[in-house]
Amino acid sequence: MSHGSGGRAMAQLIDELFYRYLGNPLLEQGNDQALFQPPPGRLVTSTDGHVISPLFFPGGDIGSLAVHGTVNDVVMSGARPLYLTASFILEEGLPLADLDRIVASMGAAARAAGVQVVAGDTKVVERGKGDGCFIATTGIGVLPDGIEIAGERARPGDAILVSGSIGDHGVAILSKRENLGFETEIASDSQALNDLVAAMIDAVPGIHCLRDPTRGGLATTLNELALQSQVGMLIREPAIPVRAEVNGACELLGLDPLYVANEGKLIAICPGDQAENLLAAMRAHPKGQDAAIIGEVVEDPHHFVQMETTFGGSRIVDWLAGEQLPRIC
Amino acid sequence: MSHGSGGRAMAQLIDELFYRYLGNPLLEQGNDQALFQPPPGRLVTSTDGHVISPLFFPGGDIGSLAVHGTVNDVVMSGARPLYLTASFILEEGLPLADLDRIVASMGAAARAAGVQVVAGDTKVVERGKGDGCFIATTGIGVLPDGIEIAGERARPGDAILVSGSIGDHGVAILSKRENLGFETEIASDSQALNDLVAAMIDAVPGIHCLRDPTRGGLATTLNELALQSQVGMLIREPAIPVRAEVNGACELLGLDPLYVANEGKLIAICPGDQAENLLAAMRAHPKGQDAAIIGEVVEDPHHFVQMETTFGGSRIVDWLAGEQLPRIC
Repeated sequence: MSHGSGGRAMAQLIDELFYRYLGNPLLEQGNDQALFQPPPGRLVTSTDGHVISPLFFPGGDIGSLAVHGTVNDVVMSGARPLYLTASFILEEGLPLADLDRIVASMGAAARAAGVQVVAGDTKVVERGKGDGCFIATTGIGVLPDGIEIAGERARPGDAILVSGSIGDHGVAILSKRENLGFETEIASDSQALNDLVAAMIDAVPGIHCLRDPTRGGLATTLNELALQSQVGMLIREPAIPVRAEVNGACELLGLDPLYVANEGKLIAICPGDQAENLLAAMRAHPKGQDAAIIGEVVEDPHHFVQMETTFGGSRIVDWLAGEQLPRIC
Repeated sequence: MSHGSGGRAMAQLIDELFYRYLGNPLLEQGNDQALFQPPPGRLVTSTDGHVISPLFFPGGDIGSLAVHGTVNDVVMSGARPLYLTASFILEEGLPLADLDRIVASMGAAARAAGVQVVAGDTKVVERGKGDGCFIATTGIGVLPDGIEIAGERARPGDAILVSGSIGDHGVAILSKRENLGFETEIASDSQALNDLVAAMIDAVPGIHCLRDPTRGGLATTLNELALQSQVGMLIREPAIPVRAEVNGACELLGLDPLYVANEGKLIAICPGDQAENLLAAMRAHPKGQDAAIIGEVVEDPHHFVQMETTFGGSRIVDWLAGEQLPRIC
């Protein structure tokens, strides 16, 4: 790959790599576009650019993350994700072995999530004009009739649940980046949540909101939902699952786990009287076994998110202010 | 924007910019995904990363190009493009005025092409880890029943048409990049071809193949189609429209216009007895007024593209070998 961008030899290499790991009849139509007939229902689409650094991290890599991130954004509407497109922007000099590993991981993640990569594109930029590998993915899913899950549907009296421990992804990336050398390695939670969400909707079809707390973490995502629904939220700190290692690392790094990114967790909001049902369905699933009810939706004209702290106090959990951690996804 | 990546202030700025220029009810749903109900028909999707350098060039910029490139890939199936997603990867330090110009241009191009940007994402990378602005777009279109246009449908006896002069885009970019200072500025042909294609299908519903000769130019695209259809092609050099300024610039730069990228032209292949009809429909459209019949499909077990030259000879027009011009789109 030392000869860099563009030529036919490289195009062939990439085609072979992509067909080998991502191949399916739709991708292999060989035209500049993919033609498909989705099952009936409304469609959902979402797009995400992935620029994570480093490319490989405990618990995943940019290839699997590019699948999980976009699949999860589609899934948070209640839709079943079916198709993905992938656009690669490679920096001249990226070792072919790294690209191989990334595309292989992407293929495995797509198969595990039940989605097909149906279209792709590759561009190469000169050394120093990129950073190894960026991947933009777009997902398309189908939403069955009758499911209405959206950010503006939270109502006072609803329960707020989280599917597991928060902060794992962000801390895993930072620990790798800063070479902190924790004794216990913290792994990213990067995973596709389509099977968990399917089980949740089976149990409680009337879920009001689902959202994955990625950039900005649990705190920012709750604030987004409160604003969209024109409500307030009251959460209880002791109820929020955080791994001891993540808590420790956050103290060391001066971070609040509430603001640290996740890539395999979700927030669910449902009518209060169905919360125990939903919690049971989540805990029965391997991706939700640490699920918890962390609070409830309240009336509040200011749309604040308030937290009862572990020590019995109360504080406002604001939007993320200032700088986010760069390139966490 | 000097304070760089990530914070909330910047996210708001970008949101306002995107809503201002690209806003529509689907984009403004405010969830992490867009929900829509396409009209009946098979769906078509295509994705393209855009890394063109420079960001602004005669006849366009990366914003309009990111719309045209993906719209055209969808359109070449005969589909009507309806929805776009856009993923921006910005380099810290990109002037906000440049981003404003790019997004405004993208919005104007989308409106002109009749597509809505329904979902977007923005990432920022550190200075020196990107190059101003990359944009990956994914298009979704709907293909009415009865239209079957694909790269493997060319048959011996079919006519080969091109919608206008070739090489304009590549030469426009190179002239700008190398500061060649031509007396007459050559402008890119970057444009969306959905209206031209609709007029062509109205006139000749049985078109066999459509493809836009972008990277690799006319020569490479004809070779792709010949291989996919397992046929040969015979084209006539004097019939191929090339502007005198483009020919001159190619001589100066040591390029063959047959291999230079286009962003607003298409190749059409149709049954020979419908070629004059198709040509008339193309010439009646502003985006096809220089259209020409440039050759025909022949039987050839080697799938060669052969050309009768202006001087009465014959030569094989091979695939692009070696390096392409980098970052032409």
